[in-house]
Amino acid sequence: MKYSDATPAEIDSALKEAHVAFLSYKNISGKRKAEFLKAIADEIEALGQELVNAAMQETSLPEARIINERGRTTGHCRMFANCVDEGSWVEARIDTAIPDRTPAPKPDIRKMLVPIGPVVVFGAANFPLAYSTAGGDTASALAAGCPVIVKAHPAHATTSELVAKAIKKAVDKTGMPKGVFQHLHGASFEVGQTLVKHPLTKAVGFTGSLAGGKALFATASQRHEPIPVFAEMSSINPVILLPETLSRDAEKTGEKLAASITLGVGQFCTNPGLIIGIEDDGLVRFIKALSAGIKNTIPGTMLHQGIADNYSKRLEASLAQKGISVEGESISPAGAAQGKPLVASVSASEFKKNPSLAEEVFGPFSLVVKCKDLSDLHSVVSQLHGQLTASLIADDAELSKHQNIINSLIEKAGRLIINGVPTGVEVSPAMQHGGPYPSTTDSRFTSVGIDALKRFVRPVAFQGFPNSLLPNELKDENALKIWRMKNNEWGKD
Amino acid sequence: MKYSDATPAEIDSALKEAHVAFLSYKNISGKRKAEFLKAIADEIEALGQELVNAAMQETSLPEARIINERGRTTGHCRMFANCVDEGSWVEARIDTAIPDRTPAPKPDIRKMLVPIGPVVVFGAANFPLAYSTAGGDTASALAAGCPVIVKAHPAHATTSELVAKAIKKAVDKTGMPKGVFQHLHGASFEVGQTLVKHPLTKAVGFTGSLAGGKALFATASQRHEPIPVFAEMSSINPVILLPETLSRDAEKTGEKLAASITLGVGQFCTNPGLIIGIEDDGLVRFIKALSAGIKNTIPGTMLHQGIADNYSKRLEASLAQKGISVEGESISPAGAAQGKPLVASVSASEFKKNPSLAEEVFGPFSLVVKCKDLSDLHSVVSQLHGQLTASLIADDAELSKHQNIINSLIEKAGRLIINGVPTGVEVSPAMQHGGPYPSTTDSRFTSVGIDALKRFVRPVAFQGFPNSLLPNELKDENALKIWRMKNNEWGKD
Repeated sequence: MKYSDATPAEIDSALKEAHVAFLSYKNISGKRKAEFLKAIADEIEALGQELVNAAMQETSLPEARIINERGRTTGHCRMFANCVDEGSWVEARIDTAIPDRTPAPKPDIRKMLVPIGPVVVFGAANFPLAYSTAGGDTASALAAGCPVIVKAHPAHATTSELVAKAIKKAVDKTGMPKGVFQHLHGASFEVGQTLVKHPLTKAVGFTGSLAGGKALFATASQRHEPIPVFAEMSSINPVILLPETLSRDAEKTGEKLAASITLGVGQFCTNPGLIIGIEDDGLVRFIKALSAGIKNTIPGTMLHQGIADNYSKRLEASLAQKGISVEGESISPAGAAQGKPLVASVSASEFKKNPSLAEEVFGPFSLVVKCKDLSDLHSVVSQLHGQLTASLIADDAELSKHQNIINSLIEKAGRLIINGVPTGVEVSPAMQHGGPYPSTTDSRFTSVGIDALKRFVRPVAFQGFPNSLLPNELKDENALKIWRMKNNEWGKD
Repeated sequence: MKYSDATPAEIDSALKEAHVAFLSYKNISGKRKAEFLKAIADEIEALGQELVNAAMQETSLPEARIINERGRTTGHCRMFANCVDEGSWVEARIDTAIPDRTPAPKPDIRKMLVPIGPVVVFGAANFPLAYSTAGGDTASALAAGCPVIVKAHPAHATTSELVAKAIKKAVDKTGMPKGVFQHLHGASFEVGQTLVKHPLTKAVGFTGSLAGGKALFATASQRHEPIPVFAEMSSINPVILLPETLSRDAEKTGEKLAASITLGVGQFCTNPGLIIGIEDDGLVRFIKALSAGIKNTIPGTMLHQGIADNYSKRLEASLAQKGISVEGESISPAGAAQGKPLVASVSASEFKKNPSLAEEVFGPFSLVVKCKDLSDLHSVVSQLHGQLTASLIADDAELSKHQNIINSLIEKAGRLIINGVPTGVEVSPAMQHGGPYPSTTDSRFTSVGIDALKRFVRPVAFQGFPNSLLPNELKDENALKIWRMKNNEWGKD
């Protein structure tokens, strides 16, 4: 083992340092926090090829993907920098006093969001950069004003070390309190548990397996002081094919989905693991095109041996279920740590009877559910668990006849996509990356986009404060020129 | 027993009805939901003296208080009505497409808040109207688009029945789906547990004891699908007296706090149960005035015998702690169900050693902590648990010298008050009624003010939707004329 697990004493000291850092970091201006976040992006870029090589070696991901992911990581650091530099994210609300109101005078009350405290972030196996050390959880927590303690994912610990060094350089260069970012290793279950149990930990960000997320959530809920855990865990991202549109576009849709299923060896949380259509000629042609795409896709090396083994095991278990037919699999043999692309199908009636078929198989696999008719399709949809995404392949005319399906899907997913694939998560203010259980532990939040920082903040109201003692965001003069809701109207005055 | 506990079958059928109602209620326009909420207010008023008498009889609260509380209840129903009629609460975000962006086109993504599903609300003992059947939890959940199942508080079950009838009349009159509001009784622990465990329950609102809130939170967290619980539980609402200001205002401050401590027989979640000052002449005069106010306050009848017994027991236990001196108590004898106003004092050093002294004693009691100096005061403050409120009695000049105390208090409370008492919670957009544990189970939310509905909603993103199929809140034309953030700018266009 190259890196040793953090000891309980090291964890305790990390949280104590984070707490001390919090008391000053929380009061640092948005402008300076923005400099810090931009410096993180700069320092990550300054690592150059060394970082790319380390990530490639540890994850088997190709260079282009790593470079792309690095761009996304520095991109969200800069996005959060701009967000806190601008400042309106604090949701300032101002209700001015009405001293002569009867029967009682109305006091002056002003409210804004403030950081919650030290946040523990767990690096994710499938995104060595964008969801790990300087990932969205870290960047959003730092932007919110919370110190971060990252537990490196053991499968890419060296990559994590490199990024951690870059962040620490940014801490030094921009004069941030030393404990604002800390980096620990931990291959054992205990390190994570100890971090989540520590009384100074105030929130947790996690992306990984259902079992892992549930365990952390349970620990956090059972603390003397329960703390919020945002765990992104398990989603099969259903794609619903409406028949009229499909009949016109079966081949193209099949090709598009084959590419989405096998993108990054299927190791995306938004991988389309379930396709729901109606048994007709269009679906036959769709499956043919999908299968052809899958057959011609060469198995890729997965992130690590454990993930590859798990994929094989879960795939095998799925294929052993009643009524499953393999529709297509890669014609190239898969090596030891490789994931073989495969699509299978099952009837809606078998699918509805067998809950195990709705469980995530993390890798380049998807299951086509063949429905007898639209009402059958609707009943499959209504039985789905919570998802990060749900996609509909359908044109406007056909969709307008089936708004009840959209209405159902809103209850099932955090993001609905029309005529697109779920892979590829745009980092923008309107993005929702989060959904009902088991896709996450709290559907009320997102882990992507500027609203991701709302996971790590709480509102505080200031009543009867003299203007001089209010936070700058709430002072009369609004020197920061942020958007505020004053007596029920948004404005910048 | 006048009302029998709901059976498991009744609970199951209530949740099933609520779920069915949800599927249509969630799509009802803000305008019609507003009519419904206003009709609830009207029907509650139409109950007239019958409701006032029932509440007075069941809670021993005086008529003026009940009438005041009814006004607050109808007031928040109308406030939420106006909020959903106006519509901007959905936090619409629109990021328009950039089809020619390289390397990949930017899709059109739009996001808004949607209701989470059926909410179980527990009536509170201390507010038979404002935090019960048509209380803030119910009104905010209905405004958000969530059906509500109220479990009546057994101590005022008839009052609850009357209000439930008024709500059901409003349901009928405004043509809402029948299952949108349901009312159950339950004196037993099991009824609450069964409601929270039901798979169709999607969130819980609770105001009550720490033990009660923690039990519901634990049950909700241990479900197969964990659900959010907003429990408002325990707060001693510290009041900090800064010495220079106090020396000028000792008598008036003592009188003001005596009134706040004994208001409503001390049965407010914002009751000032802890007063922290520095041992000097000002504090001696303050305690003298406080004690005089307490001595002259006649014991009032508490909400029910259980609360009165609990107050006596906890008061006795507090007074038996080491170093406690009684500073003043009501000179009138207290009857069986009455709460005797009492203030005691303790040195900061004893207070810091004895965590039991920081626990809530629900009733007309407050403990004065005598600090040796400002650093002693600061160390008492830094040891406080989470609170709904923290108040500072100090003028601007003195406060500006002690901003570090404000800085500490932000970590401890949801609302900071300068030169006011914590009792009296303004219902306005900037209000924060909620705070770090143990005051609530999730400091990121409020149970008072329009933001209370954020507890019961989740964001959903719509990607690549044709304009015609978007919810009205997100359509290009913004026919509802709501505030939206479009490409990072707020506006109504």
